[in-house]
Amino acid sequence: MSLKAQDSHGEKEPAGIGRRRFLNAAAALGIGSVALAGCKEDSPKNAPADAAGAPAGAPPEHDAHVGGAGTTEVKPGQLDTHYGLWSSGHSGDARILGIPSGRELARMPCFVTDHLTGWGLTNESKAIMGTNPDGSLQYTVGDTHHIQASYKDGIYDGKYCWVNDKINARLARFRLDYMVCDKITKLPNVQGFHGIFPDKRDPVDPAINYTTRVFCGQEFRVPLPNHGKDIEDATKYGALFTCVNALTMEVKWQARIDGNCDLVATSFDGKLAATNQYNLEEGEYYTDMMSFERDACLFFNVARIEQAVKEGKFTTIGDSKVPVVEGRIEFNKDPKTALVCRVSVPKNPHGVNASPDGKYFVCSGKLSPTCTVIELQKVLDWFDGKLDDPDKAIVAEPEVGLGPLHTTFDGRGNAYTTLFLDSQVCKWNVEKAIKKYAGDKTINPIVHKIDVMYQPGHINATCAETRAADGIWMAVGNKFSKDRFLPVGPLHAENDQLLDITGEQMILAHDNAVRPEPHDFVIFPRDWLHPKQVYNMDDFPMATKDASEAGVTRNGNKVTVKMVSFAPSYEPSDVKLKVGDEVTWYLTNIDKVEDLTHGFAIPEYNIQFIVNPQETVSVTFKVDKPGLFWFYCTNFCHALHLEMRGRMMVEP
Amino acid sequence: MSLKAQDSHGEKEPAGIGRRRFLNAAAALGIGSVALAGCKEDSPKNAPADAAGAPAGAPPEHDAHVGGAGTTEVKPGQLDTHYGLWSSGHSGDARILGIPSGRELARMPCFVTDHLTGWGLTNESKAIMGTNPDGSLQYTVGDTHHIQASYKDGIYDGKYCWVNDKINARLARFRLDYMVCDKITKLPNVQGFHGIFPDKRDPVDPAINYTTRVFCGQEFRVPLPNHGKDIEDATKYGALFTCVNALTMEVKWQARIDGNCDLVATSFDGKLAATNQYNLEEGEYYTDMMSFERDACLFFNVARIEQAVKEGKFTTIGDSKVPVVEGRIEFNKDPKTALVCRVSVPKNPHGVNASPDGKYFVCSGKLSPTCTVIELQKVLDWFDGKLDDPDKAIVAEPEVGLGPLHTTFDGRGNAYTTLFLDSQVCKWNVEKAIKKYAGDKTINPIVHKIDVMYQPGHINATCAETRAADGIWMAVGNKFSKDRFLPVGPLHAENDQLLDITGEQMILAHDNAVRPEPHDFVIFPRDWLHPKQVYNMDDFPMATKDASEAGVTRNGNKVTVKMVSFAPSYEPSDVKLKVGDEVTWYLTNIDKVEDLTHGFAIPEYNIQFIVNPQETVSVTFKVDKPGLFWFYCTNFCHALHLEMRGRMMVEP
Repeated sequence: MSLKAQDSHGEKEPAGIGRRRFLNAAAALGIGSVALAGCKEDSPKNAPADAAGAPAGAPPEHDAHVGGAGTTEVKPGQLDTHYGLWSSGHSGDARILGIPSGRELARMPCFVTDHLTGWGLTNESKAIMGTNPDGSLQYTVGDTHHIQASYKDGIYDGKYCWVNDKINARLARFRLDYMVCDKITKLPNVQGFHGIFPDKRDPVDPAINYTTRVFCGQEFRVPLPNHGKDIEDATKYGALFTCVNALTMEVKWQARIDGNCDLVATSFDGKLAATNQYNLEEGEYYTDMMSFERDACLFFNVARIEQAVKEGKFTTIGDSKVPVVEGRIEFNKDPKTALVCRVSVPKNPHGVNASPDGKYFVCSGKLSPTCTVIELQKVLDWFDGKLDDPDKAIVAEPEVGLGPLHTTFDGRGNAYTTLFLDSQVCKWNVEKAIKKYAGDKTINPIVHKIDVMYQPGHINATCAETRAADGIWMAVGNKFSKDRFLPVGPLHAENDQLLDITGEQMILAHDNAVRPEPHDFVIFPRDWLHPKQVYNMDDFPMATKDASEAGVTRNGNKVTVKMVSFAPSYEPSDVKLKVGDEVTWYLTNIDKVEDLTHGFAIPEYNIQFIVNPQETVSVTFKVDKPGLFWFYCTNFCHALHLEMRGRMMVEP
Repeated sequence: MSLKAQDSHGEKEPAGIGRRRFLNAAAALGIGSVALAGCKEDSPKNAPADAAGAPAGAPPEHDAHVGGAGTTEVKPGQLDTHYGLWSSGHSGDARILGIPSGRELARMPCFVTDHLTGWGLTNESKAIMGTNPDGSLQYTVGDTHHIQASYKDGIYDGKYCWVNDKINARLARFRLDYMVCDKITKLPNVQGFHGIFPDKRDPVDPAINYTTRVFCGQEFRVPLPNHGKDIEDATKYGALFTCVNALTMEVKWQARIDGNCDLVATSFDGKLAATNQYNLEEGEYYTDMMSFERDACLFFNVARIEQAVKEGKFTTIGDSKVPVVEGRIEFNKDPKTALVCRVSVPKNPHGVNASPDGKYFVCSGKLSPTCTVIELQKVLDWFDGKLDDPDKAIVAEPEVGLGPLHTTFDGRGNAYTTLFLDSQVCKWNVEKAIKKYAGDKTINPIVHKIDVMYQPGHINATCAETRAADGIWMAVGNKFSKDRFLPVGPLHAENDQLLDITGEQMILAHDNAVRPEPHDFVIFPRDWLHPKQVYNMDDFPMATKDASEAGVTRNGNKVTVKMVSFAPSYEPSDVKLKVGDEVTWYLTNIDKVEDLTHGFAIPEYNIQFIVNPQETVSVTFKVDKPGLFWFYCTNFCHALHLEMRGRMMVEP
């Protein structure tokens, strides 16, 4: 199907049909949502659009792929069919990838400065990041591990995503309309904040069928509070499981737990949050953390915890006002009142994942070759007093291979687990594993194993953490690339591999080099997001709406510059200052055209940021160097971009 | 051809044949250099190796490509055939890409902090970047535009590359063995430092057939010196063309010129450097910079300038001790003594590029639809008094289209010029253009035009700036991507497109999304670089060579930590400190295995860096917060990576 829509701007027709133009055409024809459908949720035929955006009809299974089975090539002019949200590890930000091409479409700064956008330099971003009393940034490093998006009715609603900072125990939220960080929350009394997961609905109120909480796991046990006493007495250390209000980003409550935890999963019914719990030995050194044969998957009864908080059954720690409930087993032995349920899992489990049918949690052994399948309903039964032993909620424990870490799903009953030590992915059938565990030893739940390169960590298939899991593509985050890419010195790229999982056997389709160290990712069809390209100027109180309002005002040594940019000019184009001035400089980009971002740099003054169409951005700085400084546009904007500049003239 | 070499480490055989293994096998067979040859220089048949590294034999032309003509897909396990070095614009660093896949293999930090590697945080990187008296970084933003590699005998020797910072007039050098920045030089009295180019041999000494100078263009005219006087009197402004010693990175000399300049090119014979010269009107506002119908390409006679400096025929500006010679035309009217030669070029020229045959410079009109071809020998003739008018060095001025910016070459006599306004690339034949200019109006030098998406700036073909130009791939840096990628909010990715130029007609092969704002790039075969994966511990005077030498020493409140990392441990694993201590913390990674990089982060202390195999890195900080802080490994290293941590215990 070929669409030859008229471009409303009268621009020259580019080769191929652009997305914008197609969307216009699709809307005109009233086929928008069907045409761009990608997953079961919107397309009962489970057939994503082809890359040019034409409706897919009812193609054979492999036509789900842009270039055919096992091929990730996206030809010029074609669009990726899926978005991927990627965490960046100690790069400290988050990324947006196009899938299947693997192209990095954007980076979203949050915890660390970003020199391109001016994140951490502009007043607006500093207010989100947090500053010391002297105005410097409180934190300058970050380590993002887990990224998850907000849900509505069991699929992503395209409103928010979150990512953690392991170094400084922070949670960042991104708005997915403008794809920018809008809030950062520090978790009190937490160190080694590792996994996160949003809830998928409220445990009590059925009307709240969307995300209102984000759960956070803690890996490092520290003295509570961590004020410098008890630092050598590990028996005084503790760990907290934290719940953050997804809408206000305030910390709602914490639960003190035994041992450590790191990853988090949530049930589709909103009732339970789960975390893999290890180091139940409560050792200080890793050699002390591996003596127990089984650690656990710990389930939190969200409604009961919040009722306990409401009833005042909590303590607080140090200066924090956040209510802390008891999640340690010794305080939760009676199922009728227990806030948590501990189900045992072999040796130092790492990943925990909820199956898209809502029935199971899979928790991997890491130091055991097994995955433990836990049935949600049976855990609920235990809380209801109907199951005497939490371990009876275990319905399968298939042997999948060495070093199992994380598991994803294809929506067709199969699970895929990364095997860190084997450098493989194991595809296994959940129901077969359950039947085998129930006693049928003739059944082999293992469907297929495939080599990946090398040492895989996280794994995720398209839509796999939603109830619309479609089993098209699967990404595997490999921690070592070794010889898979051209050598680039001692620091190697990592290797995110993409596999085609539409068939019985997995097909390795693409090696994607990535700057260390991405951890986690979610992938979903492109029509689940609707980003905006132009800001609304009314959202910026300090906007200079017209060039005629631009100018410089002075109050003693306090100077306010209100400037506008419009290609290829700034207004005012000359700004006169004196050494000793303290300047706040507002720049409003009054250009309205999509993609017409301007930059703004001042030599010698360490100023560089961008301003998107209709956005207003500000910086505050002291004038301490006399001379002529040509501020200029750093973001290509126009044929006369190189000429887009002006003079900051500083008298001694 | 399939090679099944034995892996010397006895590791499991991965799918496909890795580069490392192939190189071993190739060396054993004595075919290394031929097998991995990619360009004319090493392979007379002009046939790069196929992606699995097998010798190419004498394939038909299109087998030069990994996946076939017009296809950039590099299958899992295959390697890219070419390296690309990319500048990053206001992201402030440089990047290494694999070509043709377009995969980003590495980022090389230089002018701005890098949170992954700890660049700008470690003592070693801060010493290169430069600090204020209080130890903070002098500059925190950067804008890299042009990247070029060092030459020997007219091709890249794989030793160095350089990139400029336009905001703060700095030049960074990277070692290409470890792919790290090792020097940064600030250009005195320069603002708007734009283009760079290394020389290709010495103008006088034939034994020096490699790069020993880097030439730097200046775009913004400022008062000289820029001390806050004369800031409103534009007649006092000036611009400098700067020569940096490529080996010591000291500034050798500067030449004061009329107008502005930005891009730079050099002749293969080492005699001339060239720059596009515009704003000969010397206007302050862009509207004042376009009245002249012709500006210029300015040629610098390097030997004469350096002789003048030797003879003391220079001045200095302000505090700078750098000799400044006169490059303004009024001082250079006599060809026999002139340091510069000005050849006119229509209206606000932008790019200037040297043809790989060593004969021509092509300077594009930007605001004229023409490229001006200037014959090197004729410019030399003018300096020798054999040509009365410099404009007689112009041998062609083909009309190529609207907004011509940069030109590249295929080694077969064709030039390719980006047309910013037309959003096209124009392929034209140089000799045909010369014949037409000479009077044969029947000749059409235009070979082919192709749409690119959108507004192309820089362009470069494989090896095109060397005498081994091979005309296989051509990259085009497009300043706008508009609808070519999935929308990701107001800031769009840019679009580096790759074209197959082996045939008569160009073929658009790949859209590569790139984080803004890459400017320039060079592409060359993979066997021209030989990066190292493991450091030499002897290069680090403060290395702790063995775990037994690790420990903490104290001298009053000055504390020195000497620590080693070896997966999955640090030694010492506990470090006791007191509030008020000033700590210098050396970390030596004693792991020797390629790809076994460790990270090191301390919560709440804003410490995060990586340490590569056999490398030693240090940080210095004040201890100001009591408590227990688990330092941990941030760069995945081992099955027990998550357990790789230790305690910094700070007493109040």
